[in-house]
Amino acid sequence: MTITISAFERSPDGGKGLARDTRVRWALEEVGQPYEVRLVSFQAMKEPAHLAVHPFGQIPTYEEGALALFESGAIVLHIAERHAGLLPADADARARAIGWMFAAINTIEPPILELVVARFIEGNKPWMQERLPLIADRIRTRLRQLAARLGDGAWLEGAFSAGDLMMVSVLLRLRPSGLLDEFPGLAAYVARGEARPAYRRAYAAQAAVAARP
Amino acid sequence: MTITISAFERSPDGGKGLARDTRVRWALEEVGQPYEVRLVSFQAMKEPAHLAVHPFGQIPTYEEGALALFESGAIVLHIAERHAGLLPADADARARAIGWMFAAINTIEPPILELVVARFIEGNKPWMQERLPLIADRIRTRLRQLAARLGDGAWLEGAFSAGDLMMVSVLLRLRPSGLLDEFPGLAAYVARGEARPAYRRAYAAQAAVAARP
Repeated sequence: MTITISAFERSPDGGKGLARDTRVRWALEEVGQPYEVRLVSFQAMKEPAHLAVHPFGQIPTYEEGALALFESGAIVLHIAERHAGLLPADADARARAIGWMFAAINTIEPPILELVVARFIEGNKPWMQERLPLIADRIRTRLRQLAARLGDGAWLEGAFSAGDLMMVSVLLRLRPSGLLDEFPGLAAYVARGEARPAYRRAYAAQAAVAARP
Repeated sequence: MTITISAFERSPDGGKGLARDTRVRWALEEVGQPYEVRLVSFQAMKEPAHLAVHPFGQIPTYEEGALALFESGAIVLHIAERHAGLLPADADARARAIGWMFAAINTIEPPILELVVARFIEGNKPWMQERLPLIADRIRTRLRQLAARLGDGAWLEGAFSAGDLMMVSVLLRLRPSGLLDEFPGLAAYVARGEARPAYRRAYAAQAAVAARP
């Protein structure tokens, strides 16, 4: 059955790989599954046809036969469970890898989202400049803890897994802020993720959408 | 093997069921698994013994034999995968139920966490009063979309699932704000969750910790 994902027709990041379809493309590339892409405009995202698949009017979505999914974490987990390459075979190691997926989106990403909201949604507010360092410190706390756990390891739990895929994807959102470079171990970890052939193919595919005339 | 979870020795909510151990207790009650609880002080949460299990120094954790997990979403999913009662048998329905777990913590919870941070961490800042309505509107957008998808259904995908367990748990954090009551369908949905015998046992267990002398 054909896998069809959705992505921004015009991504707000201009093709820097920060939109959440990149995570799903990356997962599909890691497991070697071909896919098609349905591009969605900001207007169409809020219309009934797309809302039927994604009740919160966002991207990405994942459709395969009768199955329609939304939430990048759920989609990556679904891909990882169906195809070899993103989760270890050992049951305990598998549970830990899935644990890192949740840590990426529920512990590391929330203060990063706060930074995005502060900059772009509240960017014209008088308190913006004073709030940014407070948020940056909350992010640093998490990065310090994550760097301590990663230590000298290449990946979070032995071999590369869906947990690393989600963690690297979340950390990439920090690069414009400069915060990532304060933690060389994490910056190297993210660079290892970006160097994977599957990530490079996913990045190129989303960049090609942004480069259309 | 004995299941041991961790919880606050003194929960910041004073036993109102809003700490994240309640979700894990609820899941264990739904599937009928007994468990033990290790209570952790705020100081002990930041010490090496606890950080070895939870690198971000939080609760809850889940230990069973050689397996140690953190992140409430990962723990609830692990319980749901190991025991009957929290995920449908049909593969597509199961993927959708897991999708709602991710929606709860990655789409619904982030603006709710912003409200918590604004009130408690930035509660003394001059911009607090002006920011609260902005955050409340972001939460309302998500609640409106969630209410539209839930419609007249009792649960998000047919029968009660781990997706509902996480969604109700996240929505409960909104009750003190009054925002939940603006959406009667969602307030009734949350009340249905709270009325489940398993939830009531979980609530009673965490309340008993708070009520100790």
